[in-house]
Amino acid sequence: MKIAIYPGSFDPITNGHLDILERAVKLFDKVIITIAKNPSKAPMFTEEERRSLIEACVRKYTNVEVDSFDGLLVEYARTKRATSLVRGLRAISDFEYELQMALMNRKLDGNIETVFLMPNEKYTYLNSSIVREIARLGGDVSGFVPKPVLQALQRKRKRTS
Amino acid sequence: MKIAIYPGSFDPITNGHLDILERAVKLFDKVIITIAKNPSKAPMFTEEERRSLIEACVRKYTNVEVDSFDGLLVEYARTKRATSLVRGLRAISDFEYELQMALMNRKLDGNIETVFLMPNEKYTYLNSSIVREIARLGGDVSGFVPKPVLQALQRKRKRTS
Amino acid sequence: MKIAIYPGSFDPITNGHLDILERAVKLFDKVIITIAKNPSKAPMFTEEERRSLIEACVRKYTNVEVDSFDGLLVEYARTKRATSLVRGLRAISDFEYELQMALMNRKLDGNIETVFLMPNEKYTYLNSSIVREIARLGGDVSGFVPKPVLQALQRKRKRTS
Amino acid sequence: MKIAIYPGSFDPITNGHLDILERAVKLFDKVIITIAKNPSKAPMFTEEERRSLIEACVRKYTNVEVDSFDGLLVEYARTKRATSLVRGLRAISDFEYELQMALMNRKLDGNIETVFLMPNEKYTYLNSSIVREIARLGGDVSGFVPKPVLQALQRKRKRTS
Amino acid sequence: MKIAIYPGSFDPITNGHLDILERAVKLFDKVIITIAKNPSKAPMFTEEERRSLIEACVRKYTNVEVDSFDGLLVEYARTKRATSLVRGLRAISDFEYELQMALMNRKLDGNIETVFLMPNEKYTYLNSSIVREIARLGGDVSGFVPKPVLQALQRKRKRTS
Amino acid sequence: MKIAIYPGSFDPITNGHLDILERAVKLFDKVIITIAKNPSKAPMFTEEERRSLIEACVRKYTNVEVDSFDGLLVEYARTKRATSLVRGLRAISDFEYELQMALMNRKLDGNIETVFLMPNEKYTYLNSSIVREIARLGGDVSGFVPKPVLQALQRKRKRTS
Repeated sequence: MKIAIYPGSFDPITNGHLDILERAVKLFDKVIITIAKNPSKAPMFTEEERRSLIEACVRKYTNVEVDSFDGLLVEYARTKRATSLVRGLRAISDFEYELQMALMNRKLDGNIETVFLMPNEKYTYLNSSIVREIARLGGDVSGFVPKPVLQALQRKRKRTS
Repeated sequence: MKIAIYPGSFDPITNGHLDILERAVKLFDKVIITIAKNPSKAPMFTEEERRSLIEACVRKYTNVEVDSFDGLLVEYARTKRATSLVRGLRAISDFEYELQMALMNRKLDGNIETVFLMPNEKYTYLNSSIVREIARLGGDVSGFVPKPVLQALQRKRKRTS
Repeated sequence: MKIAIYPGSFDPITNGHLDILERAVKLFDKVIITIAKNPSKAPMFTEEERRSLIEACVRKYTNVEVDSFDGLLVEYARTKRATSLVRGLRAISDFEYELQMALMNRKLDGNIETVFLMPNEKYTYLNSSIVREIARLGGDVSGFVPKPVLQALQRKRKRTS
Repeated sequence: MKIAIYPGSFDPITNGHLDILERAVKLFDKVIITIAKNPSKAPMFTEEERRSLIEACVRKYTNVEVDSFDGLLVEYARTKRATSLVRGLRAISDFEYELQMALMNRKLDGNIETVFLMPNEKYTYLNSSIVREIARLGGDVSGFVPKPVLQALQRKRKRTS
Repeated sequence: MKIAIYPGSFDPITNGHLDILERAVKLFDKVIITIAKNPSKAPMFTEEERRSLIEACVRKYTNVEVDSFDGLLVEYARTKRATSLVRGLRAISDFEYELQMALMNRKLDGNIETVFLMPNEKYTYLNSSIVREIARLGGDVSGFVPKPVLQALQRKRKRTS
Repeated sequence: MKIAIYPGSFDPITNGHLDILERAVKLFDKVIITIAKNPSKAPMFTEEERRSLIEACVRKYTNVEVDSFDGLLVEYARTKRATSLVRGLRAISDFEYELQMALMNRKLDGNIETVFLMPNEKYTYLNSSIVREIARLGGDVSGFVPKPVLQALQRKRKRTS
């Protein structure tokens, strides 16, 4: 069974992430979408919130598992018996950073391969940080995130205003 | 009347910004150079200081207005009846970020077009952050900023030393 | 009256070109879309064919003129009393080449400004050369070119097969 | 059964290609490495030569098939019941071109996904064209190509000198 | 005597830095590897620690001096009678930033030239920040840093756990 | 004695090349500027013409030699006892190609180091090919090339018209 890890901050998950996930589930027998715990960053959504938002979005897949991890990604992948890491490839800045991470992970464990997939071009310039920024300013992000995330952003906004 | 918005942090305004502005005023009937208020960043110059520095530099133009805004740029542009956003294009990192912002703004309001202008190549690698850094270290930034900004940087330096 | 030149090979004109043109006509009082005669290249379509294809696509605009030129672009622009050149900005390779040409044209005539517009992201990776290639291989290019070009490509293909 | 196509000119196949192939065979049940016939280019090696060179290098794999094709890649993939295209990702110029091709292929057939793999960083700047160039000048390419290709390049050189 | 400055944060020094240094010592009569004091950043290693780590790594060179500086790099270079700055060139993001710094330094002192050297490609994607990150997560960085740094990272890790 | 090779097509030599040369002569004891003979390309100027144009431009330097070569650059460098290759670094496309060549040359001879220098930013987008193109169209290239090249281009133009 070919298992892949799709790691990220997912703060929050966007339509671009879901587009990559949809491509990955066709390629692998099982995809584990997993939240990187990063104690040094102050996220907009807690790990639990991010996790339930992802879960609300991936119910239609039978071969997707939602999880979170800390420590080294390659060690986590090994405990999950995964042999591939899935990453989306968009703009240039992405490209450099993604290749750096992929090379480092390969150095740390040569048996785990990073597989790059390309999102629909309409998500080329979409990322979680710009979604958070627009939502904070009261802009309409309904074209960028799935419905559960949209509602969570609106609840968050009401509370802070 | 064709109105364009030239948004930025302008902390402080540099010769590169003024070079872009000079090109924009020929292209549009009116250009509003406007300071993005960003409460999360600690600027070197207050909004008021940045505004008076810009005003001191744009007096020679009859079709330039100085302003500031918070919230979404496209909403601000609408209230100003502007149909274009002006941005300078320099190095690669710029390019990616600028295209991302332009695509996002287009998603938020399809009637507002981002127009990219190219500064003189002598400003290719100039930005406000490197000016602040050099000024802090006591370096000579007279070739990078207009006179009022140079004086303001010198005053700031005297106060902190 | 603000006149802009939109120069290119247009061999053939694509939906990406038309997307840029549509943005340019809102920005300028008149846009001259003009075919660069390049005797050293063997085009798929003759200058006359390219011209009638463009004409068939721009009939809905009242402020668009179709033309062709040889010699230096800036000299041509001067004879047309144009003060702006319009260029689309897509991928990175584009970016470098376009900036090089824009800087050269500015050196040759400092009064003519290049204005960069960004096509819809669905045309990010579209250009005439890939359209010709796919058409030659019998692929469906109906999503990439306007109807008159599609028909011209089909006629061309019948003749050569 | 998950079948992938690994297309290319392979004129000649290099250690970089073989590195990508080795990663692909672990990911898919079957990999078809296939030579794009391109009548407009004058290759160094004929299609037959390129094919036997590839065959000599992939004997150790039980799930690799060697083939060639003309026409549209996505149509070829369909006839082979392949759902993935494999491409190596190296430098920036690659990146842009590869994404363009992948987006075009997706437009032509949305069911076929391009999967990008990263070669060992020691092959980052290796391609067939630089191998041909160095071989022509009599340089030592033994670190860049597998043994059968090395011998073929030496035979070619003897004949032309 | 041709003296070069090799400036950096070196927090900590990596095999990639040492690779560049080794190339620089062949090119110049004397190389001063110098730590930029940056009070605004919280480093992993103190200036003193970074300095002794570098010293432990460069003992084999007779023409290398270890130092630190604050203020403007070009002024520091002048006091050292250096006419060259040495910088490593790796990925794209590097490239842009390095050219910006080099142009700024040239503006500040036209007599000091920045010389770019290319590390071994196996260090293409290596930097101090990724080393710190992997070390913090308990990963094996023995392939990325010299022995004294490896031991210092292990001591640091023991103390914080 | 530190000898460097500055190789290129120099068809023709431009102000950008001369800018790099001027920086190189300060760095090395001797610089050999050398024309790569490339039988497969049809140059605008013959090897002899290119050589005399370079010679006319470098008379003021006492440590510059003009030469030409065919075969492998690293072998040529060895016969000249050179340990460095000098290359100018400008735009991104440059960067990729230059690093590829430098890595290849390093593979072919690990003792020869490529040293990258940055031209004045006013030459950022200048190359021989754009100079030839503008000269052919009758444009003014006096800002891009030294006087002897300007005159040679004018003579060439008279002959062909």
